[in-house]
Amino acid sequence: MICSVSLTDRCNTNIRVSLPAVCFVWQIAMIILFGVFIRYNEESDVRKWIEFKHSHNITSDIENDFYFRYPSFQDVHVMIFVGFGFLMTFLKRYSFSGVGFNFLIAAFGLQWALLMQGWFHSLDPNTGKIYIGVENLINADFCVAGSLIAYGALLGKVSPVQLMVVTLFGVTLFAVEEYIILDLLHCRDAGGSMVIHAFGGYYGLAISWVLYRPNLHQSKRLNGSVYHSDVFAMIGTLFLWMFWPSFNSAITAHGDGQHRAVINTYLALASSVLTAVAISSMSQKRGKLDMVHIQNATLAGGVAMGTAAEFMITPYGSLIVGFCCGIISTFGYVFVTPFLEKYFKIQDTCGIHNLHAVPGMLGGFVGAIVAAAASVEVYGREGLIETFAFEGDFATRSVLTQGGYQAAGTCVAITFGLVGGALVGFILKFPIWGDPADDNCYDDEVYWEVRVSLILHLLSLRTIESSELFNVLLHFH
Amino acid sequence: MICSVSLTDRCNTNIRVSLPAVCFVWQIAMIILFGVFIRYNEESDVRKWIEFKHSHNITSDIENDFYFRYPSFQDVHVMIFVGFGFLMTFLKRYSFSGVGFNFLIAAFGLQWALLMQGWFHSLDPNTGKIYIGVENLINADFCVAGSLIAYGALLGKVSPVQLMVVTLFGVTLFAVEEYIILDLLHCRDAGGSMVIHAFGGYYGLAISWVLYRPNLHQSKRLNGSVYHSDVFAMIGTLFLWMFWPSFNSAITAHGDGQHRAVINTYLALASSVLTAVAISSMSQKRGKLDMVHIQNATLAGGVAMGTAAEFMITPYGSLIVGFCCGIISTFGYVFVTPFLEKYFKIQDTCGIHNLHAVPGMLGGFVGAIVAAAASVEVYGREGLIETFAFEGDFATRSVLTQGGYQAAGTCVAITFGLVGGALVGFILKFPIWGDPADDNCYDDEVYWEVRVSLILHLLSLRTIESSELFNVLLHFH
Amino acid sequence: MICSVSLTDRCNTNIRVSLPAVCFVWQIAMIILFGVFIRYNEESDVRKWIEFKHSHNITSDIENDFYFRYPSFQDVHVMIFVGFGFLMTFLKRYSFSGVGFNFLIAAFGLQWALLMQGWFHSLDPNTGKIYIGVENLINADFCVAGSLIAYGALLGKVSPVQLMVVTLFGVTLFAVEEYIILDLLHCRDAGGSMVIHAFGGYYGLAISWVLYRPNLHQSKRLNGSVYHSDVFAMIGTLFLWMFWPSFNSAITAHGDGQHRAVINTYLALASSVLTAVAISSMSQKRGKLDMVHIQNATLAGGVAMGTAAEFMITPYGSLIVGFCCGIISTFGYVFVTPFLEKYFKIQDTCGIHNLHAVPGMLGGFVGAIVAAAASVEVYGREGLIETFAFEGDFATRSVLTQGGYQAAGTCVAITFGLVGGALVGFILKFPIWGDPADDNCYDDEVYWEVRVSLILHLLSLRTIESSELFNVLLHFH
Repeated sequence: MICSVSLTDRCNTNIRVSLPAVCFVWQIAMIILFGVFIRYNEESDVRKWIEFKHSHNITSDIENDFYFRYPSFQDVHVMIFVGFGFLMTFLKRYSFSGVGFNFLIAAFGLQWALLMQGWFHSLDPNTGKIYIGVENLINADFCVAGSLIAYGALLGKVSPVQLMVVTLFGVTLFAVEEYIILDLLHCRDAGGSMVIHAFGGYYGLAISWVLYRPNLHQSKRLNGSVYHSDVFAMIGTLFLWMFWPSFNSAITAHGDGQHRAVINTYLALASSVLTAVAISSMSQKRGKLDMVHIQNATLAGGVAMGTAAEFMITPYGSLIVGFCCGIISTFGYVFVTPFLEKYFKIQDTCGIHNLHAVPGMLGGFVGAIVAAAASVEVYGREGLIETFAFEGDFATRSVLTQGGYQAAGTCVAITFGLVGGALVGFILKFPIWGDPADDNCYDDEVYWEVRVSLILHLLSLRTIESSELFNVLLHFH
Repeated sequence: MICSVSLTDRCNTNIRVSLPAVCFVWQIAMIILFGVFIRYNEESDVRKWIEFKHSHNITSDIENDFYFRYPSFQDVHVMIFVGFGFLMTFLKRYSFSGVGFNFLIAAFGLQWALLMQGWFHSLDPNTGKIYIGVENLINADFCVAGSLIAYGALLGKVSPVQLMVVTLFGVTLFAVEEYIILDLLHCRDAGGSMVIHAFGGYYGLAISWVLYRPNLHQSKRLNGSVYHSDVFAMIGTLFLWMFWPSFNSAITAHGDGQHRAVINTYLALASSVLTAVAISSMSQKRGKLDMVHIQNATLAGGVAMGTAAEFMITPYGSLIVGFCCGIISTFGYVFVTPFLEKYFKIQDTCGIHNLHAVPGMLGGFVGAIVAAAASVEVYGREGLIETFAFEGDFATRSVLTQGGYQAAGTCVAITFGLVGGALVGFILKFPIWGDPADDNCYDDEVYWEVRVSLILHLLSLRTIESSELFNVLLHFH
Repeated sequence: MICSVSLTDRCNTNIRVSLPAVCFVWQIAMIILFGVFIRYNEESDVRKWIEFKHSHNITSDIENDFYFRYPSFQDVHVMIFVGFGFLMTFLKRYSFSGVGFNFLIAAFGLQWALLMQGWFHSLDPNTGKIYIGVENLINADFCVAGSLIAYGALLGKVSPVQLMVVTLFGVTLFAVEEYIILDLLHCRDAGGSMVIHAFGGYYGLAISWVLYRPNLHQSKRLNGSVYHSDVFAMIGTLFLWMFWPSFNSAITAHGDGQHRAVINTYLALASSVLTAVAISSMSQKRGKLDMVHIQNATLAGGVAMGTAAEFMITPYGSLIVGFCCGIISTFGYVFVTPFLEKYFKIQDTCGIHNLHAVPGMLGGFVGAIVAAAASVEVYGREGLIETFAFEGDFATRSVLTQGGYQAAGTCVAITFGLVGGALVGFILKFPIWGDPADDNCYDDEVYWEVRVSLILHLLSLRTIESSELFNVLLHFH
């Protein structure tokens, strides 16, 4: 502890100017931009909603999109803040930063996401305004998820200011790649296997590759969990696992679309749990389970169903996807993460390669296959149009072509992640961001007031008696 | 710790073959059976939903059952995974297993539940398929709850492979007794006082009785909580308590049925809290409260309202039910659990006798009385038919007869629990399941990689200095 | 610990008679009063709902208010029990009381709230009954929130019996001030900036002022957090933060009203996070963040949007409110709380002054300004009437007058809080309530069975060896 203070002195982690400056400048910019661009949409504006009801012969307020999407939005919101946040509390002395910086960058990013996604997707050309409703809030949460995934690879090694840079560029890149994938290529990706998970995963890995720390082993003592921090992380895991059906169904079509996405995701997730447990047990002597696998690989089925959840993948198809991804993800934790660190110089704290990058990529290709296999027999003519939005410019697109575009979209997402991440990584290498020294990573004390001073003080005075120590220790349990 | 390693060597707890084998075989079987039997229903299949809307003159997607039930489903889902899971983290060194094995067996059981309940309740005789929607997902979660309750009695004393056997038979027995009670006897049991709680409670108690360990006191040092594990358990308690109104209303009739079930359960639960606190305080010297009672007995009102919640039990009737069950449940923890262990040789780790078995049984009888007291004056003629489904073969049944059948249904549930549990208990006695030795129970280290090696290593080398120890200890807080 | 036992002997904290007596008497009174007054309303009574559907030509059960409000209700419910409860677990040895007494008094208070609010707002003059539905449950949760806020100022210094007195009077005062503010003054306050937060905040501060303990520094050793208790508190923070949009929209108008309240609250909260982080970082040397600020001040935007959330405050207006309140609230924690303790003799454990009292008051005035600035141009004529309920006696009220009444309502809430709190404080000074001694505050052991006996026992016997101690300690991690 004493040495850690001296280390932080040597390596400047003082963020007393930079962090408040970024927060204030950014928040003021947001207020101005929101003032110029953001307005309520026709379902959240009192005047417009009354007019909308009259003009569309709507007799009941229950037809407001709010009632179709708000429960799912809240589940997604829990995933973003509690799910991702608590999943990152697993380190023994980095729980404050895990949950706290996640909170900060999500609140920071979602405002920028509303603007970026608004400009690309819902700018009204007549008024120059972006009209928002609950679906925009969901999309903003989704957009932020990409950057939170990237945080998983960087956990413990970067400063909060760096994380805000990661989020600023992450949200920007996300909005662009989403525009290309969903609007130009006309892919379907309701749960974001491609646009969220593959992009966010490779984005984080590329940043981590650029920021490689050869001497990170100096912080090895803190790069691990303790008993109760692993239990905290299970809160994150379970809320992610339980609400993933809401994530994948939050913005799918009303009615059967949301209904089916829930069923598919629920089944894929259940299947993932069993294969993750199986591989985890096989990979350890005496068959003991590893908490890292249970906390992460059980979720792989949800990631991989992000694209195909709204399609007619069939219930057993969903089970197969979960089955495979639970295996692949757990293998990733056992073999690939150490391999990447050793041979590719990628230090991936949370193993996002195994939970997001690869399952997201697979999910993109699963979506491509299921789309290409779609038929009028299964979907009905009307259903096929509805599910794949074969309207307007895309009215004549065949399902095979759609499958090809889906696969292309996955590649676009990965490319954006890798190239964007490499660029952002280089920006983060400037020695101005207050990141911790190699022997000072994974430690909350660098950026948080941590109240352990009593014991430290007593120890430093060398006046402590054993019986006093016990008394003091008791209060720490 | 060192001795525990030698103990586990002696008593074979190696599950490196059995656990993966069960997981893989089972999951592959599920994929095949789902492929043969499970399809989307008319509200989750894109083609069928379009046809259904046309044929039923439905103009809005909001009429899809999804919007009536999905928020409740998610609350139930949280109860199953976070509620039950975290309630079982209260032991000082068994939190991983509490929340982790709960996760495993729930994910395992819900797939089997979809099949078993499907075969009994919703197999289409023409196509031989089971068509699923959100209501099936809720029922699968319910079905799994019976086995999770049983896990509460076995916590700390069984291996994960044994738990999967418990779940496999538990789900099977559940589907059969549910078919008898709901279909043949035509009972009403929306929140499952009978089919879930009474069955699950007695099922677990019977298994625990067969698996009685005379020398369990050898693990006494670990059969208790520490400060923070009790706080973790409160997460489980509160999510169960808050979402119990959703549990009891999740599959009741649309409209007033769900509405009323929520009000009744909310009131019964509030009432339980006060009487549980009162008895807890009375039972300790100086009036101190016991966390075990607060964690468990406060929930008894929700269990006991499982059957009657959808009936017109009146708000004050709900308060009375909660009042009585809070008292009975807390008394159970104070007096009955030690009594059962001493004289009936039933070791009931979580006290499911007091939280599920008895309140579930009482809930069944409360339901019988309220059903028998139903009148046209209170329900209206149409309402009486709707509430008790007096249709088809049961169109002429009187409320008195219904009350009798409800009581009979409770007895069927208990019988299934006791007999089924005894049988499963004998199966679990085979020395092939990898269960822990008597002096090795309640210990995560038997089945999990627990990272306490640093201190252990230092201690075993006898090289540790006191100042180093303090440094190490600091990282564990 | 040993001394604490002797202290509790000296200062009588035995609640073995008083706590059960209050619980039983109260719960029996509730049953009787519910029997006399409370009935299901037309949407939760099976007979009445069928009649209601016929008489109002309603064809679908989805029109039942249950489906408009139940998801929001459950979010509010989580805020009350997990949000407030876990936010108060931050103290190192008071987590049981933080979450447990919150649970007790919320369950106690909501029953009384249903009656009090029923008598004032929804007593049917013909039948003399109160008819309840889901909106009443939400309002009961809201009403209880006022007393839970007050608990925040008293945390660690009062007995559970005193808390029940605080709640009994708190709910009563709440119902009266709410009647005056909402019914007589015809203010709008959907999210309760005035009636919940300003009232509850000043109520708690006034009680704390009367109960000032000059020697509280004797318990200073326990008035702080430890590492994991701060992580537990983040569970509370995040669930409050995430579900605050549901809180502010739970009882607003169907359709656009709920939709808009969600958007506004979501934005204000995001903005609060950034400014709270900025000020927190600026206020500490080396820019380190303080967990107290992150746990509390990030929520200020939600409090301050309680009144204006349903108005057309515009998205950027919401950001501005959150921006300012995040700053003010964090400044409050840094400067005002120590100042209040030193010069005003107000000991405010959780800093409710900064999170509830001041942001609530500001929220009331923000609401007044936004109401006064309302125009037909923005709201439309119909929308203006709908939003401000300019009907009946208030059909001719202008928006300017409405603004004046909103401001007056804020003053009424504060007055009720201060005067009511002072009175309740004096009642709590009677030496009969079992409150802890000055050197025994913030300690769960006064009211809970805390299992730390093993170490204590070994220490008292002076027989412990260092290696044994390590073994024992291991089980506490």
